[in-house]
Amino acid sequence: MLQSKYFVKTSKTAPADADSVNAQLLTRGGFVAQQMAGVYNFLPLGLRVLTKIQNIIREEMNALGAHEMLMPALTQKEAYEATGRDNLDILFNVQGQNDAQYVLNLSHEEVITPLMQKHVFSYRDLPVAVYQIQNKFRNEPRAKSGILRGREFNMKDMYSFHTSEKNLDGFYDKVKQAYFKIYDRLHLGDRTFLTYASGGSFSKYSHEFQTLCDVGEDTIHLCDKCRVAVNKEIIKEQKQCPECGNEKLKEHRAIEVGNIFRLGTRFSEAFDFSYTDENDDAHPVVMASYGLGPSRAMGTLVEIFHDDKGIIWPENVAPFAVHLVGIDLDTKDVAQHAHNVYNLIQKKGVDVFFDDREDASPGEKLANADLIGIPLRLVVSKRTKDKVEVKRRDQKDTNLMSDAEVVRLVSA
Amino acid sequence: MLQSKYFVKTSKTAPADADSVNAQLLTRGGFVAQQMAGVYNFLPLGLRVLTKIQNIIREEMNALGAHEMLMPALTQKEAYEATGRDNLDILFNVQGQNDAQYVLNLSHEEVITPLMQKHVFSYRDLPVAVYQIQNKFRNEPRAKSGILRGREFNMKDMYSFHTSEKNLDGFYDKVKQAYFKIYDRLHLGDRTFLTYASGGSFSKYSHEFQTLCDVGEDTIHLCDKCRVAVNKEIIKEQKQCPECGNEKLKEHRAIEVGNIFRLGTRFSEAFDFSYTDENDDAHPVVMASYGLGPSRAMGTLVEIFHDDKGIIWPENVAPFAVHLVGIDLDTKDVAQHAHNVYNLIQKKGVDVFFDDREDASPGEKLANADLIGIPLRLVVSKRTKDKVEVKRRDQKDTNLMSDAEVVRLVSA
Repeated sequence: MLQSKYFVKTSKTAPADADSVNAQLLTRGGFVAQQMAGVYNFLPLGLRVLTKIQNIIREEMNALGAHEMLMPALTQKEAYEATGRDNLDILFNVQGQNDAQYVLNLSHEEVITPLMQKHVFSYRDLPVAVYQIQNKFRNEPRAKSGILRGREFNMKDMYSFHTSEKNLDGFYDKVKQAYFKIYDRLHLGDRTFLTYASGGSFSKYSHEFQTLCDVGEDTIHLCDKCRVAVNKEIIKEQKQCPECGNEKLKEHRAIEVGNIFRLGTRFSEAFDFSYTDENDDAHPVVMASYGLGPSRAMGTLVEIFHDDKGIIWPENVAPFAVHLVGIDLDTKDVAQHAHNVYNLIQKKGVDVFFDDREDASPGEKLANADLIGIPLRLVVSKRTKDKVEVKRRDQKDTNLMSDAEVVRLVSA
Repeated sequence: MLQSKYFVKTSKTAPADADSVNAQLLTRGGFVAQQMAGVYNFLPLGLRVLTKIQNIIREEMNALGAHEMLMPALTQKEAYEATGRDNLDILFNVQGQNDAQYVLNLSHEEVITPLMQKHVFSYRDLPVAVYQIQNKFRNEPRAKSGILRGREFNMKDMYSFHTSEKNLDGFYDKVKQAYFKIYDRLHLGDRTFLTYASGGSFSKYSHEFQTLCDVGEDTIHLCDKCRVAVNKEIIKEQKQCPECGNEKLKEHRAIEVGNIFRLGTRFSEAFDFSYTDENDDAHPVVMASYGLGPSRAMGTLVEIFHDDKGIIWPENVAPFAVHLVGIDLDTKDVAQHAHNVYNLIQKKGVDVFFDDREDASPGEKLANADLIGIPLRLVVSKRTKDKVEVKRRDQKDTNLMSDAEVVRLVSA
């Protein structure tokens, strides 16, 4: 992709209302633009990152045997009256024609439960798991922290349906493993911890996935032995690790990057959703829900992977694999060399962003590359002669390589 | 994909409120489920079709050099006050915290115009085109015709920005061509016509793309010579072809499957969005918008490509390329043969849906395959012995082929 033709404008300064590092750097780097507090536009560069995160999540959900579908934002309010969630402060109300009352879904239990009721009748139809990647709407009193806590935000939500708690247990554990695979692929695995949280009426615990981060709005208490944590609700009741009893838990700030929750029969009973067993006896379906927000994950990555110059994207989610910066492009030989390197890399099927702009200074271009944060930077200039200067965004040293060496490096 | 493990339930009867062929067949086939009037869930099979349509559109928009981005559904009402669209009956109002007034975007001019204003300053930044594939919300008094006219529906909307009407013209024509490429790829090209419609204050005409269909809610008047049409607004003023003057126009029912519209400076002036020319003089930016709804295209395809047994998907958008139906699977040899054919086709990277269910009769399975409408049906049964029965959904005759011939056919 030629940067001169790409719709991206970076900025040296962040908008006054950017209240967090992720809002500042993502806005300055041309990834997002705030529409209003808690609502963001994803610009082309930002959509590339968001899509890569969504695809990693999608692959791991599909590997679990879950089926992707798509539910609407708009739903009749009656569905929320059935579950008693119609008076939640964070539920957005929408007025339809002829006094019809709608809401914007804040999660999708009220949609998926009656929907599965039309498709699941007997034990032979269970277990089944479905998920979607869609936007949620929450009337937050105070939206904050950039794309970490929004009024409209992207969410992967999965729902699983089972004949019994025991049947649910096996799947619930597999989802835990799938979530850690996702965090590993997002380069968050080594600082993300399974965290015990309140379980509601159907189980002792639910589970959060908390990523250590100094600016996180949550506090967790970590057991170094078991590498699990408890959240601040749980620590009030039991000041010890739920797995080994260790009482020396360490307090950390963290960002909640996922949660999984046994719903039990809370929603199936509200909608009278039951299945028949081998003897034709009816039982309420046992449910669980599993959330993981791609846009929040994107904000978390920026909070963790940045320096004073800009973002440092992990490879799996970077908008491009390579940022080729052309300097002295008004010199014919240099321009030819830079375009040649660009073509060679493109032929290898590697995503390369080529700063071919003629109206930006070398200093601007290099600062721009640091801000955008693509993992590998290549510079072609008069000074590099027939070589290419190679620098990783997360390292200080540079190397000079031949074109052939560069091609081998990027296609490795 | 094994049908026994897939989340799809077909039905012999349509729900009472299914008011159109597309609602009936898409619901019966397990593609969609109505949430409320004008709002649909896309089930796994339906999401596969919708995604294929979206990707065809995406490829042709990218080929135009347009940049994909993603705008929100929720927007501050002030933006619509600036353009005078805040009192439209079909605009959904949403109440925020502390008396904040939001709306759900019915199109995105009020979002994209101020957004581009932050990125476009001079003639050097123009022309530029951006698009998104996102849901729109319209408070329709009467939602109808299944997924053809909804309250929440999927839309590709592109916006282009230019220094002058003349500069816009060239791009506008390229978009016309791109739209016809899309309709060709959707197998709608031969019955879709460029249709002259009212242009608003900035040009004599806008353009609709109308697909001939007896149940369409629009009426168009077609010139057989030029293969263009005029819509019913235009025919009141001029009873002739705008291209050749032909007065013998033929009346047809049609579905509007796209529209492109010169916005001129209507929105740029509302937001005071101007660019500076070579002499540093400021001018309002000239804009156009280009809509094409993937979910409406999906409904249109069903209205056109079906028979009394079910849907007949065109190959490019079919949920799977091949429907393999296993019959007599309780006979070991037959089951082995069917699974062998399934594996051979999968190895070729072809999407195959394998009806491996043991609790459905042969009649049910064949009726089910006709309803779902995958283009190529393969049957393996006792009767086919070591051969496979091959039938195209849009043809009556069947052939017996060897496994090797089948593999060659599906991977051609």
